[in-house]
Amino acid sequence: MREGKIMKQIEVMKDLLADNKKLAKANRERLNSKVIFTINLLGSPGAGKTTLLERIIRQLKDEIQIAVIEGDLYTANDAERIEKEGVDVIQLNTKGICHLEANMIREAVAKLNLNKVDLLVIENVGNLVCTASYQLGEDIKITVLSVTEGSDKPIKYPLIFQNSEVVILNKLDLLKHTDFSMVKFNRDIKALREDIKVFEVSCTINQGIGELIDYLKQQVAERKFSNEPN
Amino acid sequence: MREGKIMKQIEVMKDLLADNKKLAKANRERLNSKVIFTINLLGSPGAGKTTLLERIIRQLKDEIQIAVIEGDLYTANDAERIEKEGVDVIQLNTKGICHLEANMIREAVAKLNLNKVDLLVIENVGNLVCTASYQLGEDIKITVLSVTEGSDKPIKYPLIFQNSEVVILNKLDLLKHTDFSMVKFNRDIKALREDIKVFEVSCTINQGIGELIDYLKQQVAERKFSNEPN
Repeated sequence: MREGKIMKQIEVMKDLLADNKKLAKANRERLNSKVIFTINLLGSPGAGKTTLLERIIRQLKDEIQIAVIEGDLYTANDAERIEKEGVDVIQLNTKGICHLEANMIREAVAKLNLNKVDLLVIENVGNLVCTASYQLGEDIKITVLSVTEGSDKPIKYPLIFQNSEVVILNKLDLLKHTDFSMVKFNRDIKALREDIKVFEVSCTINQGIGELIDYLKQQVAERKFSNEPN
Repeated sequence: MREGKIMKQIEVMKDLLADNKKLAKANRERLNSKVIFTINLLGSPGAGKTTLLERIIRQLKDEIQIAVIEGDLYTANDAERIEKEGVDVIQLNTKGICHLEANMIREAVAKLNLNKVDLLVIENVGNLVCTASYQLGEDIKITVLSVTEGSDKPIKYPLIFQNSEVVILNKLDLLKHTDFSMVKFNRDIKALREDIKVFEVSCTINQGIGELIDYLKQQVAERKFSNEPN
């Protein structure tokens, strides 16, 4: 009896993920056709995703047209913070669901003027587990980990790091107050994904943000360039 | 078509939660019949749950018989840390599932000698969202939040705090390096649950652990007392 129920649940879950993948592909095609570079920004609650995004916007918005989709369970707190930075922002409230899904992104994208976007950042719900399984239509996933969370986290939550092109190690100014091991972190993260790109940053003391900005500029420029007529 | 699938998913989810609730009730009855005080220990990855648990065990194990169930996605890292403290520990690997469920706890409990347990601590998967919806058979939920995660977290992740009898505000030694607002935190947490008990602690500088230990001793003693024959 219970066995049957579990099988049914697994089937529904598979179905849901397959649906999501199809919708994500459609989102990606739509965004790519508009030459938009799209980031799925991931991390635990409190890793520093929104603060980092504020910094990125401040340094990039005069050169690059940015839009943001903010995923939260209930509040609009983060969207209000981003709105103050003077870029377009769409709030998505999942009403308790622990991750964003591609159908939510489709609806949010429909509200944006895509002709005025070069870089789209989707800030996901704070969650190192569930968010890793749902593609949204992004070009890359960036996972933010703060040093105060501990250097054991890549090994304990491997999927999200394996699925991420970039990891931002944040709150580096607090490193000296923690037992975070850079050696362990770097070894484990490379073991999970050899080609992962790591940026070590601190928003508080403005460290490493420049390298991250340069990387993002380059990604946006590469897309523009490869889409120009010969 | 899609509408139909979503309805089916909602039905399965409801079914799963109803099943879980029944199993949790059976777990609680079994544990209560053995006069065991059971804690569901919750928090984000890196909030400091395992370190806190190590401290609690060191200070309590000579007076109180403790057992631990460690929930992790894949690794046995935390269980190995707890084993070193000299108490019984059962490792549960969810293999990617983002929360513990009551059926997993039933299996783990079957492996423990319940006659030798006064206090059972179930350390859940690091996750502020999904873990909040699954009862395991616990007497109380304790959520650990570290100050480095930010004082906006109770409002952004309300369910887990509403469902928790106790919140432990951890890493207090780092407070001066953050913009965490104690005023906002205390106001928001009381608005979510008026009778919530807050312990402010730091494992690094050994602050506030005594009060927490006293509270746990009292909870265990109350259960023993209320179960003694008149």
